[in-house]
Amino acid sequence: MHSFPELSKIFEEKFITRHFPASPGSLYDPAEYMLRLGGKRIRPVMCLMGNELVGEIVPDTYHVATAIELFHNFTLIHDDIMDKAPLRRGVETVHTRFGEPTALLSGDVMLVMAYEYLNKIKGEAVHKVLQLFNRTAKEVCEGQQLDMNFEQQPEVSFDEYLKMIELKTSVLLAASLQLGALLGGAGNGNQHHLYEFGKNLGIAFQIQDDYLDAFGDPDKFGKQVGGDIVANKKTFLSIHALEVASGDNAKELKRLLESSEVNKVKNILAIYKSCNVDEWAKTLKEKFLQTALVHLEKIAVLSARKKPLHELAEYLIHREH
Amino acid sequence: MHSFPELSKIFEEKFITRHFPASPGSLYDPAEYMLRLGGKRIRPVMCLMGNELVGEIVPDTYHVATAIELFHNFTLIHDDIMDKAPLRRGVETVHTRFGEPTALLSGDVMLVMAYEYLNKIKGEAVHKVLQLFNRTAKEVCEGQQLDMNFEQQPEVSFDEYLKMIELKTSVLLAASLQLGALLGGAGNGNQHHLYEFGKNLGIAFQIQDDYLDAFGDPDKFGKQVGGDIVANKKTFLSIHALEVASGDNAKELKRLLESSEVNKVKNILAIYKSCNVDEWAKTLKEKFLQTALVHLEKIAVLSARKKPLHELAEYLIHREH
Repeated sequence: MHSFPELSKIFEEKFITRHFPASPGSLYDPAEYMLRLGGKRIRPVMCLMGNELVGEIVPDTYHVATAIELFHNFTLIHDDIMDKAPLRRGVETVHTRFGEPTALLSGDVMLVMAYEYLNKIKGEAVHKVLQLFNRTAKEVCEGQQLDMNFEQQPEVSFDEYLKMIELKTSVLLAASLQLGALLGGAGNGNQHHLYEFGKNLGIAFQIQDDYLDAFGDPDKFGKQVGGDIVANKKTFLSIHALEVASGDNAKELKRLLESSEVNKVKNILAIYKSCNVDEWAKTLKEKFLQTALVHLEKIAVLSARKKPLHELAEYLIHREH
Repeated sequence: MHSFPELSKIFEEKFITRHFPASPGSLYDPAEYMLRLGGKRIRPVMCLMGNELVGEIVPDTYHVATAIELFHNFTLIHDDIMDKAPLRRGVETVHTRFGEPTALLSGDVMLVMAYEYLNKIKGEAVHKVLQLFNRTAKEVCEGQQLDMNFEQQPEVSFDEYLKMIELKTSVLLAASLQLGALLGGAGNGNQHHLYEFGKNLGIAFQIQDDYLDAFGDPDKFGKQVGGDIVANKKTFLSIHALEVASGDNAKELKRLLESSEVNKVKNILAIYKSCNVDEWAKTLKEKFLQTALVHLEKIAVLSARKKPLHELAEYLIHREH
């Protein structure tokens, strides 16, 4: 059994190899470029963790973990096109560097390559893996579509927003864990609780993301605080603030959200604080974390086997950057 | 055993049903819109034909045929975005009607749905099906990328162009046949010859397409003759004409190809004729057709079983529209 950092290292060493043919380079080099941008590889590592919850790592799990990471990168390439994002992790996005048509096609071929890795699984297990993978892939597309819809929608309820985050972010984390467990031979009950652990953890993770963007320590956060506010992005904080602010506070918040004035970030943060949005977010995050941990508790394996998952939760939820 | 038109009818009746969930409609309705645009459903019908070459239709073949048609429509949605095409089959393309981000995502989810249908195949046969499907999907992406590269490239050789057409168009026709045969239990030798039949037929089909665009009977062709010339599209005809034209003819052809003057189509067609491009194209088409038929001949089944494939070849190659 391995710790979270150990599994990260094991996966990264296997993953950092060329995944696509050399030719035509005009199609495959942009795909390789994307994979070289790095990232925390959280999802494939979660897949390995799901496997180690049950026993020793089954070799097929590496194929599925690789497929998950390719799928995730496919969504990033296409999301960046849809969002017209110039940069990712501080460097040019694929479409900025190689043009939109090529980026679109490189994303497509990356999704096909994910299925190539899934097809390396031996025997009939491939059916169950594909079923969960396909359902999750559809849900992630649905989440991205809802996210785009919400950008055009003046009012989005908390429940609608939560559903979107669940689809866009959480289900892939949950499925990564479950796919690992499934390959390890876990029973349906354990698979279910592991999925729910991942899903609730994913939501808590997103709340923490939104919280840090607004209230993170600028020295630790690593990027400009208030980025979401500047970009007019809907977040757990903005959705909740609009629901609870009243009177002049509500009017001023709506005005500020549509403005682009110099003190926008400062003034919106002041309203968030006056509505206790910061404390609300911390409480909400803890609520989802606790739900996640209840599901982790219910998984019927030796508690020592759950240690890396506790580490993971700690890492994702209490990080300051 | 069924004729080509009978199989078309059988497939269309099964296919014309909703393939995607109702919600979110903003994602799935554009996908359904694309499938309702119609089309000849040649590829799924070829899959059924490949199956009937061996025996009665195996039920799993319908799943694979559906997956092939969904894959084909996924490529059309994305190609139309890349090519900035406003219309397809006389009506608005998906991105024209629903916007590029949604079209991109609807295409993505259509590809995932194709894999959902593939996963309905029972047992371990799914591995061989996925292997051929994935290889073909990658090749189709490669073909589209080469096609886009060629648009920016002043000179493209006949061999390069042929390779691009093979990848972009032929391999999917070939794989459709082979997937059907594979599911029917055909041996490797028969599968190979069927694939080669489809591949060569596909190339002959594309040559006929290019020929009709330039030299088709305007009363039968159904669209404006010379559309490829107006759109500055590289075709078998333009590539060959540039290779064989000499002296003033060559200079004039290059000038015309870059111009947008009123008599462009008429004058380019005159040069094509003076270089015997029309006769060359007919001969080339027949050459690929003959190669296809040699492979069909080599398939070790009763010759009566090959009749629908002969009909198919006749339909694709000697059509006038």
